[in-house]
Amino acid sequence: MRATVMYAAGDVRVETVPDPSLVDPTDAVVRVTRACICGSDLWPYKTMEHSDTGRRMGHEAIGIVEDVGADVRTLKQGDLVVMPFAFSDGTCVFCHEGLQTSCVHGGFFGTEDVAGAQADAVRVPQADGTLVVLPVDEDDALMPSLLTLSDVMGTGHHAAVAAHVGPGKTAAVVGDGAVGLCGVIAAKRLGAEQIIILGRHPDRTALAREFGATDVVSERGDEAIERVRDLTDGFGVHSVLECVGLEQSELTAIEIARPGGAVGRVGVPQDETMPAGQTSFYANVTVGGGPAPVRAYIEELLPDILEGRIDPGKVFDRTVDLAGVPDGYRAMADRESIKVMVRP
Amino acid sequence: MRATVMYAAGDVRVETVPDPSLVDPTDAVVRVTRACICGSDLWPYKTMEHSDTGRRMGHEAIGIVEDVGADVRTLKQGDLVVMPFAFSDGTCVFCHEGLQTSCVHGGFFGTEDVAGAQADAVRVPQADGTLVVLPVDEDDALMPSLLTLSDVMGTGHHAAVAAHVGPGKTAAVVGDGAVGLCGVIAAKRLGAEQIIILGRHPDRTALAREFGATDVVSERGDEAIERVRDLTDGFGVHSVLECVGLEQSELTAIEIARPGGAVGRVGVPQDETMPAGQTSFYANVTVGGGPAPVRAYIEELLPDILEGRIDPGKVFDRTVDLAGVPDGYRAMADRESIKVMVRP
Repeated sequence: MRATVMYAAGDVRVETVPDPSLVDPTDAVVRVTRACICGSDLWPYKTMEHSDTGRRMGHEAIGIVEDVGADVRTLKQGDLVVMPFAFSDGTCVFCHEGLQTSCVHGGFFGTEDVAGAQADAVRVPQADGTLVVLPVDEDDALMPSLLTLSDVMGTGHHAAVAAHVGPGKTAAVVGDGAVGLCGVIAAKRLGAEQIIILGRHPDRTALAREFGATDVVSERGDEAIERVRDLTDGFGVHSVLECVGLEQSELTAIEIARPGGAVGRVGVPQDETMPAGQTSFYANVTVGGGPAPVRAYIEELLPDILEGRIDPGKVFDRTVDLAGVPDGYRAMADRESIKVMVRP
Repeated sequence: MRATVMYAAGDVRVETVPDPSLVDPTDAVVRVTRACICGSDLWPYKTMEHSDTGRRMGHEAIGIVEDVGADVRTLKQGDLVVMPFAFSDGTCVFCHEGLQTSCVHGGFFGTEDVAGAQADAVRVPQADGTLVVLPVDEDDALMPSLLTLSDVMGTGHHAAVAAHVGPGKTAAVVGDGAVGLCGVIAAKRLGAEQIIILGRHPDRTALAREFGATDVVSERGDEAIERVRDLTDGFGVHSVLECVGLEQSELTAIEIARPGGAVGRVGVPQDETMPAGQTSFYANVTVGGGPAPVRAYIEELLPDILEGRIDPGKVFDRTVDLAGVPDGYRAMADRESIKVMVRP
């Protein structure tokens, strides 16, 4: 089959690799019908050191179950399933607590152990715990929105949950990528009455407004902080969704939080230290979040997609086939595209 | 009257100063019957640059109302009151949210604007919002425990609340000072089933056990982290109360938190950056806390003291008069004393 392999920053290739097969009795093999390129894939695309063997890319997918291991109970050949970016057994203490990204038998796609989903097919460990059957056909018009359940919509929702968004509260979203845009949807869905998007790309902030953002702040740094305070009686917002992960965006996120407010981080942090530790302390601002347990959120978000109440699939503004994946990376890195869907 | 003035690290003097008087109509003047020295007073005691005018010290007190301004409604001369370390109007949006340490008309004792309480008397701004009348006599045997409501018991409680302590959960307390010891009381009071105290002073950890600690970890750094994990099935604890504020203690706090757990910070952070920002991210560990709104907690904690269910006053192991305050600082800095009470 064909699969996407990254060899170094800027060096993404689609190559012929061995077909995936069942390794453990809890595995499934899924033929990928939809995959996509993630904002987090752009970190290695910008910084990866050369690797002789390369890294198999992709952690978001919808597909058809082709084969299941002897211990798989809830899935059968032919099921259409959505695959969260992390696999999880569904039975451990962390899965029971809804934190599947810390599953004791879990892990992540697109790693040395488990290959990526920007491919014709993918092996899915812990298939019973990981995959969710979708009650639609594989060419349903809802496919783009359903695909966001594998990462960006669940991740935006996690940011909102970690930022304690609730009815009547004020929220700000730092970052206008696909996750930030889904964060706007999530903040609106959870009842925020004012939603400020911080972003500089007119096409993205326009989509943010369509998703429910009430204000756009295109400034950066101190000016952005000042603008958000001006929009919020000088206090800052109750809830900040940090959807970037750079020191500057984390700093902004903490500075625009209102005393007693919360920052929900879902942008993968690029630095080991967190800025503004005294600022957050003196204002009693809580900093939470992390890799989203999107598996936990699928049951909650799926009906809203199926019934048309949210339409996160609009973050996809380009579709490529597998051969087009390298150019898809380039388009996202060049900000020509918000998010690229892959139809193998 | 006499008051405590710090001129530089290690240079604490008791001097005659002008008596306090009403400045604003919302003020009260309180004759101090009990004050104390705080662990946070030791930061300037160790590091303060020389000041010609000095800094008036002390932010914890019980006393008798001597005079009230024209706008004070709820207090009268002769009332015995406890004074939280922050003053607050009780009416602003943050006071209504229970975050009196961010009151829009609030501030702190022992600053340039408002003098300290290690003195014969103290001016209390926003007296109606700040002071709480105590239903006992000024020499009641409960005085030490009641005095902890002005800071350390409320602060330990805040750490526990910010760390999401709850029934059946596991907790760890980093730091065996008076706040850490009160954190143990708070964790037990909120239902934690396992409470690990991290501390190296046998007299303090013995008191922690008396307060409800189930385990003592006297190691530091990586060894402490290893020990806590050994005590918790390898996972770490649900709730960490960070009661020190140094980089090393913050790092330990984050590392011993279980995935999905929470760190409640009340140790005043000595560095602007927070360590382990990636560790906390990947484990979805929430970091919260800050200056405790102890005013918000007095109504909740007071009955437990009056009815003998908790006895935080045991953290006081030395009593001095005002003349003895400088030696009290020395004794706490030298770890001869956990916490020093002052009877002017």
